[in-house]
Amino acid sequence: MSTFIQTLDHAWQTTNSLLCVGLDPEPSKFPAAYANRSDAIFDFCKKIVDATAPYASSFKPQIAYFAAHRAEEQLEQLIAHIHLKHPGLPVILDAKRGDIGSTAEQYAREAFDRYRADAVTVNPYMGFDSIEPYLEHEGKGVIVLCRTSNPGGSDLQFLETGGRPLYQTVARLAAEKWNANGQLGLVVGATFPKEIEVVRGIVGDMPLLIPGIGAQGGDVEATVKAGRTAAGRGMLINSSRAILYAGKGDDWAEAAAQAAKDTRDRINAFRHA
Amino acid sequence: MSTFIQTLDHAWQTTNSLLCVGLDPEPSKFPAAYANRSDAIFDFCKKIVDATAPYASSFKPQIAYFAAHRAEEQLEQLIAHIHLKHPGLPVILDAKRGDIGSTAEQYAREAFDRYRADAVTVNPYMGFDSIEPYLEHEGKGVIVLCRTSNPGGSDLQFLETGGRPLYQTVARLAAEKWNANGQLGLVVGATFPKEIEVVRGIVGDMPLLIPGIGAQGGDVEATVKAGRTAAGRGMLINSSRAILYAGKGDDWAEAAAQAAKDTRDRINAFRHA
Repeated sequence: MSTFIQTLDHAWQTTNSLLCVGLDPEPSKFPAAYANRSDAIFDFCKKIVDATAPYASSFKPQIAYFAAHRAEEQLEQLIAHIHLKHPGLPVILDAKRGDIGSTAEQYAREAFDRYRADAVTVNPYMGFDSIEPYLEHEGKGVIVLCRTSNPGGSDLQFLETGGRPLYQTVARLAAEKWNANGQLGLVVGATFPKEIEVVRGIVGDMPLLIPGIGAQGGDVEATVKAGRTAAGRGMLINSSRAILYAGKGDDWAEAAAQAAKDTRDRINAFRHA
Repeated sequence: MSTFIQTLDHAWQTTNSLLCVGLDPEPSKFPAAYANRSDAIFDFCKKIVDATAPYASSFKPQIAYFAAHRAEEQLEQLIAHIHLKHPGLPVILDAKRGDIGSTAEQYAREAFDRYRADAVTVNPYMGFDSIEPYLEHEGKGVIVLCRTSNPGGSDLQFLETGGRPLYQTVARLAAEKWNANGQLGLVVGATFPKEIEVVRGIVGDMPLLIPGIGAQGGDVEATVKAGRTAAGRGMLINSSRAILYAGKGDDWAEAAAQAAKDTRDRINAFRHA
């Protein structure tokens, strides 16, 4: 069986897309026809997935949006649907977990055994033994928060640690100490293209999950030029709200597909430029 | 309605206990009679809660242990049971969430609206705007990771940041900038009593959630002397596995109660000593 990293690299090449479609379902923003449907979250996300799959190389459900609505079963169904209908497009469960080893084992079971995600996002604040249990799931991907796209990201991540900001220390730990089996990636926000470039310099070809284009305002050209590998790949560039809620009318799924296509094309314009 | 901090302070005084019973259910460790019971997690935890309530001032379910077993409904039932049968003993949902503001809003809804927890643990790596949405839930408690009890905790938390280790910078941010409404607490592991003392010096009477006694080996006397406030309170001293799995026989609930009583008494021996 292929590892997450192999699947991802294959998907980047066969789809000719670096777009990761983020699945952050908010029922209050759904088309009116979904009012009072108990499977609204699953069905809305499934239609988004099917509409955008031609333009995406991965999907990233954000678990908080399911948990807040008691929709864990719908999340299971959604990921099963992606694996069945869009094999080869990996699923990253965005959970940002971080806990001591014995608890991390449980979170790893949740992500990989229960939800059958191909990769999961994790938080580095508790150090390597909080990340290690995920790595014991052979071939799975583990994407560590490094430089996040939110304004408060600077509160800790920009603190000087031994002559460099904390996020760079995290990138070095990930690249030099924590990545024995080649399962790691890093989260680096598109709101800081210069910092993406620094991180890319530290981590070689390691995959970077880059949220923050679209609703959060990151610049696509600067992001792609900063984060691409020599082969013009290496990035999962995530867009969630700008795709999911691109249209309000009956053609909302087509609008999402068009937004995904446009985003893919804007990214591709700068991959080799 | 009382706030979490008020409820907690009242519970410390009326129960004469600083013990927080951690609920980390592992079905493989349950008594044999639970094999193949679909409500095993709820029922085991309920019996632990009822047996240990006389010796505890709070309960802390760890959500990973429920999520790994698709037991979210059992977690809802368990917290409802605690509120109904043991009113006045606050429930801390140990989730260690950390995400951008819009996602943190969803996690806050999960913790407070869905599970009806009185407080939740959160991760500071993404900064203040990842914590703020929880504070908008009036009166709820938000307990921020500061110095964690695991070995890898030092990887980041002990990095020098402006002349002090990162965990002390987090304690200062929490005490001086982030705690406008008095809703915050901090997690500081019992495996580092000297560091508990430093944190107590920074944060005044702020509640400290202290895991790491029991199975993780922290020293009770050193912990209590380091973390107590002038009034001999201020700590939620957590024990999970050492209480939950104290007995293997038919008297497992009594064994848990005895372990809780012993732990409470060992703590109390040093509260004013």
